[in-house]
Amino acid sequence: MNKTILLILFLCFLNHDARSQNDLSETLNLMPWPKSVVAKPDRFVIDSSLTISIQPKNQERVHNAAVKFLRRLSGRSGVFLNEGFPVTDKQGSIHITYDTASKLSIENDESYTLNVADGAINITAKTDIGAIRGLETLLQLTQNNATEYYFPGVTIYDAPRFVWRGLMIDAARHFQPVGVIKRNLDAMAAVKMNVFHWHLTDDQGWRVESKVYPKLHQEASDGLYYTQEQIKDVVAYADNLGIRVIPEFDVPGHASAILTAYPELGSKEGYDYSIERYSGVFDPTLNPTIDITYEFLGRLFAEMTPLFPDDYFHIGGDENEGKHWDENKIIQKFKKKHDLETNHDLQTYFNIKLEKILNNLGKKMMGWDEIMTPNMPTTTVIHSWRGANEGLPEGNSLIAAAKRGYQTVLSNGYYIDRMEPVENHYLVDPIGDAELTERERSRILGGEATMWSELVTPLTIDSRIWPRTAAIAERFWSQAEVKDVSNMKKRLKQVSFTLEELGITHIRNRDVILRNVTNNQDISALVTLSKICEPLKIYSRNKGGIEYKTYSPFTLFADACVVDAEDAAPFNQAVGRFVSDSNNSSVNEVLAYLKSWAENHDQYKALTKNPKIDPLETLSANLSKTALLLFKAVENKSLSSENLSKIKEGLVILDQPFVDVEVVVIDALNTLTTYCENHYLMN
Amino acid sequence: MNKTILLILFLCFLNHDARSQNDLSETLNLMPWPKSVVAKPDRFVIDSSLTISIQPKNQERVHNAAVKFLRRLSGRSGVFLNEGFPVTDKQGSIHITYDTASKLSIENDESYTLNVADGAINITAKTDIGAIRGLETLLQLTQNNATEYYFPGVTIYDAPRFVWRGLMIDAARHFQPVGVIKRNLDAMAAVKMNVFHWHLTDDQGWRVESKVYPKLHQEASDGLYYTQEQIKDVVAYADNLGIRVIPEFDVPGHASAILTAYPELGSKEGYDYSIERYSGVFDPTLNPTIDITYEFLGRLFAEMTPLFPDDYFHIGGDENEGKHWDENKIIQKFKKKHDLETNHDLQTYFNIKLEKILNNLGKKMMGWDEIMTPNMPTTTVIHSWRGANEGLPEGNSLIAAAKRGYQTVLSNGYYIDRMEPVENHYLVDPIGDAELTERERSRILGGEATMWSELVTPLTIDSRIWPRTAAIAERFWSQAEVKDVSNMKKRLKQVSFTLEELGITHIRNRDVILRNVTNNQDISALVTLSKICEPLKIYSRNKGGIEYKTYSPFTLFADACVVDAEDAAPFNQAVGRFVSDSNNSSVNEVLAYLKSWAENHDQYKALTKNPKIDPLETLSANLSKTALLLFKAVENKSLSSENLSKIKEGLVILDQPFVDVEVVVIDALNTLTTYCENHYLMN
Repeated sequence: MNKTILLILFLCFLNHDARSQNDLSETLNLMPWPKSVVAKPDRFVIDSSLTISIQPKNQERVHNAAVKFLRRLSGRSGVFLNEGFPVTDKQGSIHITYDTASKLSIENDESYTLNVADGAINITAKTDIGAIRGLETLLQLTQNNATEYYFPGVTIYDAPRFVWRGLMIDAARHFQPVGVIKRNLDAMAAVKMNVFHWHLTDDQGWRVESKVYPKLHQEASDGLYYTQEQIKDVVAYADNLGIRVIPEFDVPGHASAILTAYPELGSKEGYDYSIERYSGVFDPTLNPTIDITYEFLGRLFAEMTPLFPDDYFHIGGDENEGKHWDENKIIQKFKKKHDLETNHDLQTYFNIKLEKILNNLGKKMMGWDEIMTPNMPTTTVIHSWRGANEGLPEGNSLIAAAKRGYQTVLSNGYYIDRMEPVENHYLVDPIGDAELTERERSRILGGEATMWSELVTPLTIDSRIWPRTAAIAERFWSQAEVKDVSNMKKRLKQVSFTLEELGITHIRNRDVILRNVTNNQDISALVTLSKICEPLKIYSRNKGGIEYKTYSPFTLFADACVVDAEDAAPFNQAVGRFVSDSNNSSVNEVLAYLKSWAENHDQYKALTKNPKIDPLETLSANLSKTALLLFKAVENKSLSSENLSKIKEGLVILDQPFVDVEVVVIDALNTLTTYCENHYLMN
Repeated sequence: MNKTILLILFLCFLNHDARSQNDLSETLNLMPWPKSVVAKPDRFVIDSSLTISIQPKNQERVHNAAVKFLRRLSGRSGVFLNEGFPVTDKQGSIHITYDTASKLSIENDESYTLNVADGAINITAKTDIGAIRGLETLLQLTQNNATEYYFPGVTIYDAPRFVWRGLMIDAARHFQPVGVIKRNLDAMAAVKMNVFHWHLTDDQGWRVESKVYPKLHQEASDGLYYTQEQIKDVVAYADNLGIRVIPEFDVPGHASAILTAYPELGSKEGYDYSIERYSGVFDPTLNPTIDITYEFLGRLFAEMTPLFPDDYFHIGGDENEGKHWDENKIIQKFKKKHDLETNHDLQTYFNIKLEKILNNLGKKMMGWDEIMTPNMPTTTVIHSWRGANEGLPEGNSLIAAAKRGYQTVLSNGYYIDRMEPVENHYLVDPIGDAELTERERSRILGGEATMWSELVTPLTIDSRIWPRTAAIAERFWSQAEVKDVSNMKKRLKQVSFTLEELGITHIRNRDVILRNVTNNQDISALVTLSKICEPLKIYSRNKGGIEYKTYSPFTLFADACVVDAEDAAPFNQAVGRFVSDSNNSSVNEVLAYLKSWAENHDQYKALTKNPKIDPLETLSANLSKTALLLFKAVENKSLSSENLSKIKEGLVILDQPFVDVEVVVIDALNTLTTYCENHYLMN
């Protein structure tokens, strides 16, 4: 065959794949969507005889993944398996082979092939990591009918688009115990994420035991820190799941906790450093002009680096406004003496020294994008976070970094604490339409979702991370062309449900909070409200950081509400269909929602009041009143001008924030009102 | 005053207290009920100015308890406190004083006085343990109206009846990770329990890292064990809550796991020891006739005892049937040579050697009641467990042990894994009407609820322990006269709800399981069924241990059901009232339940079927059919003989076990049927 024919055949193959993916993604709830999925007529029935074998045997990662696979499969299918562990004396009906066991790094090969046929499943991979990624895909294939569970016949070839697919959890603002971290690692592995970025210190607390500088955890953590043994335990747990752990020790800013323990390292003499209880950007900053700062960081990092075997080490470096530097005359003199014009130059001076310390300890230094200055060596790794919110173009520093020779990772666009709809993150492509050379492209390692914890506790953090992060995981793993939002949302619904299997509490804890809010009364009235309310977005909940302290209650109505509120999209879509064609069936759907909201206030009123539910009265009453009037208008195709006024009054009220939530069906209600005004208004 | 007047005054005082307790226990949901509670007209309002101070300062237990108190109070009230930590520069509005910090032992003084007045609360205690017990009582006092939260004015004096108030968790049959243990320790502390008995090894697994005998955790745990650091962490966590930790290493029986690792210690040569996957009593037993057994146990216990600083150390010693001893000729010879007539004598020989080993390590040996034999030194502690189920009189060995000079602890009657109603445990008094001398009485230390884990996993264990164990905790703490079941149940309902605050998952995980059972469909039909179904009782679920293996699924309908099913008691009581007076309002209550069950099957049928819900069809259909016919009979006061036959057929079917549950309204339905037959049957 000549090259042209080969090319045509190759394009046909690609095309066939792409077409299959589109069709199959309507029936298979795989996430992230694999590189190539081809259906077969086969079916592998899950019954008690199912067994797993692994070649080579006795390797920890695959063995553990296989055991967990069996437990999860048994739990979700109800099948009593005869064999609860991989079999070693024969080939299992699921057979896993791989070539080499991995030491985790960005070089890891995570590709795998999965073949499901009648009675036999094969997973083959170059590495153990690829094998466990394949097992997760297999589990996502689980389907059932009335009488049996089965895996549908498929041939899958899969490999990730980016090598760095991360989730950052901030354990500083609100401490997150080991159990929280582990269950989130399980969830990450389920959607093939491979980097856990652990934000371990900030103004609000230092969270790691230090034997060299014990005042750090003793005086700057309120007793909430990880022991070194716990760190090792978490790192080993993550390693077993094929997840690298990158610690972050944020310096020289965000340093209130460090300076609470060691004020002599601070930039402002006589300042009364203490653990910060509010959120925001604060002044306490390490003094980059004194030797003891570097001695401290050198010894500290020498203690910390062995706990975190990964090549990369994050030093933060963000949001240092240098106010205390400006106020310190000696620091000003130092800048002059060393020809450091700006505070940014001084921070670069600091960063370059840090980079050498870390380099000597065998680590690549990583930092937020502020560290990218002209003098910064390209051995550092740039973590791009700033965007429109900080007055910069979105994702700009990522492309700039790649072009300037830095390895780089994107978080701008993936700030899940902003409480934005899933598609806002899903549609952010790390590269987009940037034109890059092959070499520049290779420097873009991937991205990280960031879970800053100012407003989350162990009770609520899962519902802020999941399920949206699964869609971000798909962005990092799947091909750029996989970006159909409605198909993603359909698959995400199933992924969200199965995350409960791993202990993720994002669904179950809503009712826990609502039981607390009602003092254990019937929560159904509040459940109805919570399905159309979302927490205030883009940091407006905390009003510049002054409403909530770290020890304020996060057990309130807003904490039970989540992004992508359950009833909002179906209602908004039904209204959209209705106003474009009022004869279609969507009218019944619209009416059903309106009726349920109209009636909901009776249930609300039946609750014995307390100070936690009382502020919802206005929301509940106005929603009920407005929904009832709209219901009548739509049902009777008739609206009086008096009722129109009342509806509009109600909508104005509902458009306000209530107890830190917003009603996210307000636009659809306005649309519906306009429609009724145009079509049903009586003169 | 002469002695008679003093006595009269004293009795009046006692009487006043008792009266107050009875009245107040209708409004205050305290559990365990304190020794003396007197109401005052005062009210302490909970607002942002609330502060806590502690004298002496900086003591860990009280400080930590105070911080947790502030978080829990803020979380449940929604109040944004100005001060999130104990104040040190002034006296707080809640002021705690105590005399001494404790080293935990059975000698600890846990008494406290709590005084709530307008704007000022005082907790005073002899020890820090007493102080933290008082803080839990204060938190239980929290009340609210529509506009504020407050503590009602009271003066409470409190002290426990028994010094040993324990919960045993079996981490061997199903491993329970550290997070499960810690949240249960929190819950124990909330109801003033003070002993965590940790069952760490059994036929199904060895659960502690051993550096001396590493094959134990490496080869006999499936990788599910506590590291020594985790053990220390849990012990320190418990200590902080005033909870002693008693480890149990069960020998010489229940030894399959130990012998999987070290078969040379076994009694049957050439036996293929392996970790047991089923439940039951098994044959593998340590060989008590060879020196290496004692060398092993000596070195092992020398390694383990420093991890568990408590004075007491539990060696199990139960359920050794000695089958392998009988089959071993050398052991038979050994018995003859040492004049050991029975296997029980041989086990006593073994126990006496163990007692010396432990004594040398500074420990008091504790064991299940089989170890109480004529030759056993009275320095051992007898843990009474056997009762009617084992063909013995209930609680018999406890009284016998006390009379024979042993310290003793009761678990017979507190086997919460038997899935019996709460009152069955609540009404078991450790002493009952036994006549004991003061000295004998002092040997009865208290009791322990036992959570054996054959049929529970981390997903379900909380709902098997709680809330019933809170009532058992009251039995151990409160005066014997506190035994009004209906009052206890009223208070227990509130305690159960507040346990969610501590992370206990007994309520939230029901829906997790039902979402799994339905594959994430609307669970309301199954919720309705789960409220009148309970898991099969007294071990009948597992049919002699052969149905469930340790790795079988515990994610099924039975796992969502709990003892004391929510709707059972109200329905059963309503039927009781109805049949004694059919004109009272209970008829409406009865009709409402019948209607909801009659209609429920429509919802059930709307579910897309799968192999997990399919077996509930018969239950749902027959409940619906029978309830509808009964509804008509009661509503119309008329029943045809044809319908009576149908009802009776339905009840026969509903009286069968379905998928490991039983319908617990069956007696009431039968009663109602008989009533209808007697009053409404048409000729």
